[in-house]
Amino acid sequence: MKALCFDGQLSLQEVPTPRLTPGSALIRVILAGICGTDREILKGYSGFRGIPGHEFVGEVVECDAREWVGKRVVGEINITCGSCEWCRRSLSRHCSYRTVMGIIHHQGAFAEFVTLPVRNLHEVPASVPNEAAVFTEPLAAAAEILEQMPVPSGTKAAVLGAGRLGLLVAQVLRNAGAQVTVIGRSAGKLDVARSWGLTTARADGPELRPRSFPLLVEATGSPEGLETALRLVEPRGTVVMKSTFHQPAHFDTAKVVVDEITLLGSRCGGFQTALGLLKEGAVQVQPLISKIFPLEEGVEAFAFLDKPDCLKVLLANQ
Amino acid sequence: MKALCFDGQLSLQEVPTPRLTPGSALIRVILAGICGTDREILKGYSGFRGIPGHEFVGEVVECDAREWVGKRVVGEINITCGSCEWCRRSLSRHCSYRTVMGIIHHQGAFAEFVTLPVRNLHEVPASVPNEAAVFTEPLAAAAEILEQMPVPSGTKAAVLGAGRLGLLVAQVLRNAGAQVTVIGRSAGKLDVARSWGLTTARADGPELRPRSFPLLVEATGSPEGLETALRLVEPRGTVVMKSTFHQPAHFDTAKVVVDEITLLGSRCGGFQTALGLLKEGAVQVQPLISKIFPLEEGVEAFAFLDKPDCLKVLLANQ
Repeated sequence: MKALCFDGQLSLQEVPTPRLTPGSALIRVILAGICGTDREILKGYSGFRGIPGHEFVGEVVECDAREWVGKRVVGEINITCGSCEWCRRSLSRHCSYRTVMGIIHHQGAFAEFVTLPVRNLHEVPASVPNEAAVFTEPLAAAAEILEQMPVPSGTKAAVLGAGRLGLLVAQVLRNAGAQVTVIGRSAGKLDVARSWGLTTARADGPELRPRSFPLLVEATGSPEGLETALRLVEPRGTVVMKSTFHQPAHFDTAKVVVDEITLLGSRCGGFQTALGLLKEGAVQVQPLISKIFPLEEGVEAFAFLDKPDCLKVLLANQ
Repeated sequence: MKALCFDGQLSLQEVPTPRLTPGSALIRVILAGICGTDREILKGYSGFRGIPGHEFVGEVVECDAREWVGKRVVGEINITCGSCEWCRRSLSRHCSYRTVMGIIHHQGAFAEFVTLPVRNLHEVPASVPNEAAVFTEPLAAAAEILEQMPVPSGTKAAVLGAGRLGLLVAQVLRNAGAQVTVIGRSAGKLDVARSWGLTTARADGPELRPRSFPLLVEATGSPEGLETALRLVEPRGTVVMKSTFHQPAHFDTAKVVVDEITLLGSRCGGFQTALGLLKEGAVQVQPLISKIFPLEEGVEAFAFLDKPDCLKVLLANQ
């Protein structure tokens, strides 16, 4: 099969189609999304080598559990042991022995086919088109915030970073009743947020007062985002950390201590919640699609992400 | 009066006795404690110039409110405006316009006399000796953790740093019902913890498993402590950040995100809680005193803190 492979360089290669193992499904990838973590992997994040890609919608083509064959699915990205302390405590996304599709020792979805354990799969409701279903994974990550902390209706919240993930987080928070301001650098991306009725602000704009948000979600994907977040969050407020990047960040921890700020790391979320939001139409995702490339043009697709105002780029199998 | 002054160098100087202002009290300092923040101030933390010192017990010698004169007092260190957003929200310790005794634009307690607003004062119960009362401020800071987060009885907690603050935090957590392990480098300091029946471990010891504590308090006073804390805290666990230091820390934020860790900054706490703990004898503080120097030997007292196994050093007015 064709696949985008990363071995220090990203290239399209012809590789063996993955073999079905017991309990797994072989899935033909229909659409896959490129996310910030994939770009960080290309810089060295997690030391991954192989086929990246962890956002996808596909169709099961082979599976011992026959009822799954032919179903349109999305898949949770953590492949867990099922028996360690974290798995037993229903925190299997933190399994000590997990592999992670396209990130840690498991081939990803920038390929014609991918395998996943059947227990990772979720059937996509018929009313959710492929172009929306492919957002299940990042939308689940956005909704994870609500699983981790209470966000009472009316909470004044800011999302730092008007990118792919930030615009999902902003919608999820608004759907929960928060008063959301999206803070970004790109006029085009902020226009998208405004078209949904969200308040926006320029990251360098004069309207942003220091210490003015009780809840701030850092989704810039860059180490500098945390410093801005710490400037804008109010004393005793919370900064949700959503960005994973290769370099260590350095910042003034005394500020965190003195202002008694909570930094809350937040990663993957539950797929059922995300599929529910997509089915209800509570969150708009298709306006985030900047361009769909065929898988064969995957290298060009990664390069396209550097364009100003580019949001989500998808790879399609023909 | 005599005072220890910092102007880039620490020295004993003869300076004017502070003048009483309306609403304030003039206090004769009986004992003052040197804390990690004071040492950081000498490295440049907060850019402070003047008389450091924010832990003290003293006697009111002059005050418009006559009933305070002659009383033995401790004093909250944040001098607040009383009218900003944070003061109105009962978060006056985060007042936007605050000064902080011995740290931000208010002369501190390494002197014969100090002034504080009367509303900052707390009378010391007769049963609490000066050598215990002088620990009110750091003990309040230790107890602040319980104000910020629930610590259910039986919680497995580790305190990283067996120093002055760490040994107070450990006792406060144990008093709340937590199962506490004190982690340090110095055998002598760990002996103190063990003498109180606390479990101890060497920071570099083989008995410490990564990802093994749901609650970890970082009280090492050094930027490296945070990295150790992130190694030992379990996924979805909390690291309470207690250290303030001059340099920025840098650490792998991806770890915080991926393991969904909460970093909770924690600073000053309520004095009434601390005085209550001292009165009940729920926390032992006097064994922490390594040496008492006369104020005149304050420079030597700071140097003495470099000795191995040194815990609290106090300055006494004769």
